[in-house]
Amino acid sequence: MKRVTQFLVQNPLSSLLIALPLTGLAQFLHWSSTLIFVFAALAIIPLASLIGEATEGLASHTNPRLGALLNATFGNAAELIITITAVKAGLLQLVKASITGSIIGNLLLVLGFAMLTGGVRHGTQTFDKRSAGRNAILLVLAVVALVIPSAWGQAIESQGSSKLEAMSVGVAIIMIALYALGLFESSQLKESPLSITLTQGDLPNWTLIQSIIILALATIGVVWLSESLVGATEAVIQGLGISEFFLGIIIVPIIGNVAEHLVSVQFALKNKMDLSVEIATSSSLQVALFVAPLLVFISLLLGHPLQLDFNRFELLAVLTAVVVSALVSSDGESTWLEGAGLLAVYLILGLGFFLLP
Amino acid sequence: MKRVTQFLVQNPLSSLLIALPLTGLAQFLHWSSTLIFVFAALAIIPLASLIGEATEGLASHTNPRLGALLNATFGNAAELIITITAVKAGLLQLVKASITGSIIGNLLLVLGFAMLTGGVRHGTQTFDKRSAGRNAILLVLAVVALVIPSAWGQAIESQGSSKLEAMSVGVAIIMIALYALGLFESSQLKESPLSITLTQGDLPNWTLIQSIIILALATIGVVWLSESLVGATEAVIQGLGISEFFLGIIIVPIIGNVAEHLVSVQFALKNKMDLSVEIATSSSLQVALFVAPLLVFISLLLGHPLQLDFNRFELLAVLTAVVVSALVSSDGESTWLEGAGLLAVYLILGLGFFLLP
Amino acid sequence: MKRVTQFLVQNPLSSLLIALPLTGLAQFLHWSSTLIFVFAALAIIPLASLIGEATEGLASHTNPRLGALLNATFGNAAELIITITAVKAGLLQLVKASITGSIIGNLLLVLGFAMLTGGVRHGTQTFDKRSAGRNAILLVLAVVALVIPSAWGQAIESQGSSKLEAMSVGVAIIMIALYALGLFESSQLKESPLSITLTQGDLPNWTLIQSIIILALATIGVVWLSESLVGATEAVIQGLGISEFFLGIIIVPIIGNVAEHLVSVQFALKNKMDLSVEIATSSSLQVALFVAPLLVFISLLLGHPLQLDFNRFELLAVLTAVVVSALVSSDGESTWLEGAGLLAVYLILGLGFFLLP
Repeated sequence: MKRVTQFLVQNPLSSLLIALPLTGLAQFLHWSSTLIFVFAALAIIPLASLIGEATEGLASHTNPRLGALLNATFGNAAELIITITAVKAGLLQLVKASITGSIIGNLLLVLGFAMLTGGVRHGTQTFDKRSAGRNAILLVLAVVALVIPSAWGQAIESQGSSKLEAMSVGVAIIMIALYALGLFESSQLKESPLSITLTQGDLPNWTLIQSIIILALATIGVVWLSESLVGATEAVIQGLGISEFFLGIIIVPIIGNVAEHLVSVQFALKNKMDLSVEIATSSSLQVALFVAPLLVFISLLLGHPLQLDFNRFELLAVLTAVVVSALVSSDGESTWLEGAGLLAVYLILGLGFFLLP
Repeated sequence: MKRVTQFLVQNPLSSLLIALPLTGLAQFLHWSSTLIFVFAALAIIPLASLIGEATEGLASHTNPRLGALLNATFGNAAELIITITAVKAGLLQLVKASITGSIIGNLLLVLGFAMLTGGVRHGTQTFDKRSAGRNAILLVLAVVALVIPSAWGQAIESQGSSKLEAMSVGVAIIMIALYALGLFESSQLKESPLSITLTQGDLPNWTLIQSIIILALATIGVVWLSESLVGATEAVIQGLGISEFFLGIIIVPIIGNVAEHLVSVQFALKNKMDLSVEIATSSSLQVALFVAPLLVFISLLLGHPLQLDFNRFELLAVLTAVVVSALVSSDGESTWLEGAGLLAVYLILGLGFFLLP
Repeated sequence: MKRVTQFLVQNPLSSLLIALPLTGLAQFLHWSSTLIFVFAALAIIPLASLIGEATEGLASHTNPRLGALLNATFGNAAELIITITAVKAGLLQLVKASITGSIIGNLLLVLGFAMLTGGVRHGTQTFDKRSAGRNAILLVLAVVALVIPSAWGQAIESQGSSKLEAMSVGVAIIMIALYALGLFESSQLKESPLSITLTQGDLPNWTLIQSIIILALATIGVVWLSESLVGATEAVIQGLGISEFFLGIIIVPIIGNVAEHLVSVQFALKNKMDLSVEIATSSSLQVALFVAPLLVFISLLLGHPLQLDFNRFELLAVLTAVVVSALVSSDGESTWLEGAGLLAVYLILGLGFFLLP
């Protein structure tokens, strides 16, 4: 019992595993969809975290290059699984929203909260300006490339056309190529925004076999939970009066990024802002360069082609988030007031998304 | 007589006090509205300057925290009084325009003119990059937050709706909260963009009582002049063929900011660009974080709810001004050519506003 | 023969002079318009390069101030001649597109390719952050000023009006004035983005008379080729199914900037990134501050008034290019991945322009 308590103190997220059987129970007993949604969402959180740890365990048994590739690919496994399930269900609005929502959430909510809590405890915090600047440059390039098709679609005022489809696929190909180049570069560098690991030393001592089994089990769990989550989505939208769009842009990214949130805040509290900033930036970068193009390709295979036509306010929000966070991290310093400013922008954007018709 | 001459040389603005009785005379004798408008505008300038000095006199007799709060609150007293009077008269277009106009004017006109004159005299001028960068970050955060409702309103293409009202009030609450946090931070720091004072040592030796009396008299004067000014506005618009919008975005901010202009240019000529840059930035910051949300609240009480729906060209102008000025001050150096560039952008924007239908 | 070979190895572009007689032949024998277009385009490239060299030869025989003015004025001679010919032919769409295309091409294609090739050979390359920053500031100011009329026109949703004409002329006057100020500053400074020369020491030893004759002949050649090129344009558009717009934004700028491309890449390969970055920035700056306003004035004289109303996607593209390239060069460092990122953005924009209806 003491051990369990100790484990839970060290891994507070693990206690959420209790939601896993509850999701099954709720489905079996036909409880309300909202309840199923909440349980599934909560249960995904610790499993997403487990996938991350198992991937790193696996990576530590391979050579560094393969390890970096594994980390980069599975780093967003939970998010990918949820969105692929949503693509299958034809919830493209939710999928698109969760792509931008994940970028916005990482850059404003995660980073803002880290700067706020870290700044309250340590005053002005510093981090490596050079590496933050370099990552910010890559991020701006990636996000600008990602949103060009939408801006293009709005400039020609013909959304959903076959040309927009061509544009989306073209951009996806270029992004994936850039991602491959980035991975190639990161296999040469020691520090790279594409291969950052979250645990940083607190790695569990799992063998290769243990890592693979845990990875497989956690992935299966997330797949099942994603189906429960997505299955309950329609009922939740009608029941709570929240739009599919709001669910996608605020709720889903929060579920998928809780681990990043916690780790980033922990590093900020330990006055390691370098790592906090890097987690937020690299997560966003992976979404723009890897998750989004992959979803475009997978959606084609699944017969629900996903077009990169974000709405105007999404465009505004994601560009704002990128510019503001790049600016805040450009001077290698952060204060709690800057963190509060990022959170204020997130709150205002969130209010806008909530009120969006 | 000699004394008066000496006083006028040291306080050139004071000679404009002559416009105060002229405004009364013009009203009494029913001179043209344009004349009343011009006299009232001219008379506001020295009174606005007096309010600033009296506030600082008052602040010097209190503890620093209260002093900072006083300075921050009364720093834009003239602008606030004019705009509140305009809200009462239902001139919401003018009020909104003067919010953005004040930000644009400070960042392009004031800063550009300071850099131009300072650069002509001293060549390349330098200032503290770190503090300029920090203020620029806060300013970008504040202005982005301020314009999100407008961009949101245009994205959903439903201006003037009740949702936009909710959005405006929500943003105003978040901005004021951020302002309070900023004031709290500035009470801890010695240097802060929210509590900068304009006189910097040239403070008149007024007692507490003298300061209060001068503050009260100058405020009453500005209130009366604002009513004359706003009362004459409609006739001026029809007489000169200038739009309410142009009056708000170019003329009113120039009236309200003449003191900042002069002081900022004086510091630039003395090669103290740190202070010049800080005045321009902090004035804009106070407008975005304090004046704008306050006007939203007051307009609700006055029954003419002000919605933060700036038009597209205003959005463009204010974002341009913020980005361009942040960029110009990001390297801690200024040249007269950069100053000329800022003025060129201001001129082009002004031309656009003038030609706006 | 050996001499000719040696000359061609040192001046690979010169071999393209073969296209000069071919253009005449093609016109004489009434070959297809596409062939005439291609020959004329190819023949312009070495002549543009010759104009550049002759100008520098001429400049070396005058005093530095006049020399700087000559370089600045004739630096874009080929581009100016092509676009003026197009204005005469009433191809205003092509002219406008080539203005933005030239800026985008310099900042994304030229700079991206230089950073990519240089980075592959030398790893992370460095350049003077301060001067790159200063030029980036001027460039952002110039480009923002250039695009304000378009944004203004779209905000009022009345394109092609007489007010937009007034706006365009007003902006052109302000830009030319800023350009004159910039030239004045550059005559005082040793290093200036407005007077950079491309050859940097490889200058041919031409006498004053030789320089003038070569300049005159090359200019006449470009004038004649431009007429062939523009004359063939309409047929090319119909034949290849490429839009006038795409021709203007991608093809024409590439023809006009081949020399810059080559020189910039050569400097990058020699690890002189300072010069690479400066060439790309200063070329763009000259287009925005000199070519564009000059075309506005000339178009008025030629009776085909050119209005600065770029379409939305052009606006987006040019602002993206400026912001992204400013950001990439802001840290004084470049990597091949950043270069690849710039090229990716160029490719995506190019795809968008190609698909534009």
